[in-house]
Formats: sequence, structure tokens, C-alpha cells
Amino acid sequence: MKLGDGVEQAVHSVTMLAVLPEGGLLSAAALAEFHGVSPSYLLKHLQALSAANLLATVPGPKGGYRLARPAEDITLLDIVLAVEGPEPAFRCKEIRQKGPNPLPKSAFQRPCQINAAMLRAERAYRAELRAVTVAQLVREVEEADHDGAIARRGCAFLDANIRHTPTSR
Amino acid sequence: MKLGDGVEQAVHSVTMLAVLPEGGLLSAAALAEFHGVSPSYLLKHLQALSAANLLATVPGPKGGYRLARPAEDITLLDIVLAVEGPEPAFRCKEIRQKGPNPLPKSAFQRPCQINAAMLRAERAYRAELRAVTVAQLVREVEEADHDGAIARRGCAFLDANIRHTPTSR
Ligand code: FES
Ligand code: FES
Repeated sequence: MKLGDGVEQAVHSVTMLAVLPEGGLLSAAALAEFHGVSPSYLLKHLQALSAANLLATVPGPKGGYRLARPAEDITLLDIVLAVEGPEPAFRCKEIRQKGPNPLPKSAFQRPCQINAAMLRAERAYRAELRAVTVAQLVREVEEADHDGAIARRGCAFLDANIRHTPTSR
Repeated sequence: MKLGDGVEQAVHSVTMLAVLPEGGLLSAAALAEFHGVSPSYLLKHLQALSAANLLATVPGPKGGYRLARPAEDITLLDIVLAVEGPEPAFRCKEIRQKGPNPLPKSAFQRPCQINAAMLRAERAYRAELRAVTVAQLVREVEEADHDGAIARRGCAFLDANIRHTPTSR
């Protein structure tokens, strides 16, 4: 079981967008540069976050991304599902119905107990991710930044790269 | 996030081996036939289960697989980790340390809070899988088999395919 690298990039990008001032935007190129990742690869994930209505996009050469809703209303689960897709990790192929002398479909009205147990674990995983908001992650990162060095680096980068939504000027 | 098809095949195979009488064995070919899956693909997963000490192997043309320990002592987590490997689904690449003007390593003594949150979810997932034993799965499958049709098909297949460990004759 492996999540793609896109999850780390997407969560860090959303966390960075969460500290932009009102009306601020960052381009995909700036988000990629700050995190040292491939711009084309990150762009794909940012588009997935937009498609899931977590990010809003201002198009054009001076455009960029911002959160589509408050950071309190975006969870880690929202981001993981936007990037990785909604399907559970375990995908039952109903192998109990295969092989020799198969039984009629009516013998399998209830889901396979193995599938049910795997999906219970997936629910526990998702509940844990749903309990963490982007606002909370921003607070935790700030709290761990004892001497403020992480914030200073981030602010300097934002100052050099921030753009503004046309309507907010 | 996706688990390989091997997990379903491995759990079903282990569950089938759990109902063998003392000293009974099944070949990889029989397990593959019963579940309608590719023998070479299943073999790889059975070998992983053996390497993890969940299955014992009797080599040779009359050999096969049996559980290496009681079904009460094998959990769903044991099987998933044997097939998928021990690494967590989320693998932090420390992208917070990349990009322009990187900070000294000393700024990152604590794990990234995003990584920590993802690993909390993984722990919840694993705890849920660790709580389910193969013995319990066998009981649940039996309970769901109201008219005994699933058991009858399984028993007929076992009767035709069971082998015996040489020492148990
Ligand atoms: S048939 Fe898919 S998990 Fe049992
Ligand atoms: S640096 Fe990897 S999750 Fe934050």
C-alpha cells in the first residue's frame, strides 16, 4: 500500500495557501519551487484539488491558486481523496465467486466478511484524516517552529511571489 | 491509495488453510484454482506469507502449504504487511527541507506535523486490522453461510485436493 508523492506535495501546498492574506494567490510554479518539486507534476495535483473545490483558480499569466473555502473547512481527508481518488484501498474482486463449481449469486447476498473487515479499517483511517483540518496543521507547524526560522523563510518567499486576485485590489 | 490484488488472494488463501484438518496441506495450484486466480501470481504471495512465518511449506511435488501457527495468532495486519511490505502508505520525502534558501537541518528536529498526522491515521488503520484474527474471519464466514452451501463447496474441493504432511501419516 502506497500513497503517491502527490499527497505530501498537495498537503504542503494547501497549508502554504492557507497562510496567504485575503485575496493573495500563488502560482503553481511558485508552489513547486518552494517545495523543490516538479512543476508539471504538482500542477496535476493542484488541478485535482481545484476539481474537488478545495482550491480556487484565477486563470491567466498573473493568476494562481488560493483556498476555495476557509482552512477550518478543509480536512486532510479532503486532500487525500482529491489527489488519490475516492476508492477504498482494498478493492474486492469477489474471488469467493470464482473457481470451480461456482455457487449461484444468491449465496453471496452479504458482502464478504474479509472485504467488510478491510473496509472497517479504511473507515478508521478516514475518520482519523477527517479529524484533522488544514487550520489545525497550520497551527501545529507554527507551534513547532520555536525560533520562527520556518515562518521567516516562508514569509520571505511569499513576499517575493505573492499575486493578488484582480477583484481584491 | 491502492492495495494490490494479492491481499484479497492471500487472506482468502490463509482462511482456507485455516480450516484444514491437522497435518493437511494444499498446493499453490489448488489454492489458485479454488480462487480462480493466476497460479504464478498467487505463488509469489504464498512465498511472502511463508517468509513472514505465517505459512509453513512442505517442499516437493507432493508438498504444499499450511498455517505456521494457530489461526487465532494470525491477524489481518500480519497478512497485509507480509504481502504489501512493512512501510507506511504515506512516505514523507521531507519536502519542507527542499526549495530555495533551505534552513539548517537543526530547524527540523521534530517530524513534520503533516507526516505525523498521516502516520496517526496509519496507526488507526493498522490497529483495526490487528484486531481481526484469521480464526475470527473463519467464524464470520461460517456464520454468514446460512444454508451451508459455501461450506459444502469448500469441503468438496478440499476432499479432492488435500495433501498430508509426511510426518503426520
Ligand atoms: S471475495 Fe473479495 S474479499 Fe472476499
Ligand atoms: S515534509 Fe514530508 S510531510 Fe511535511
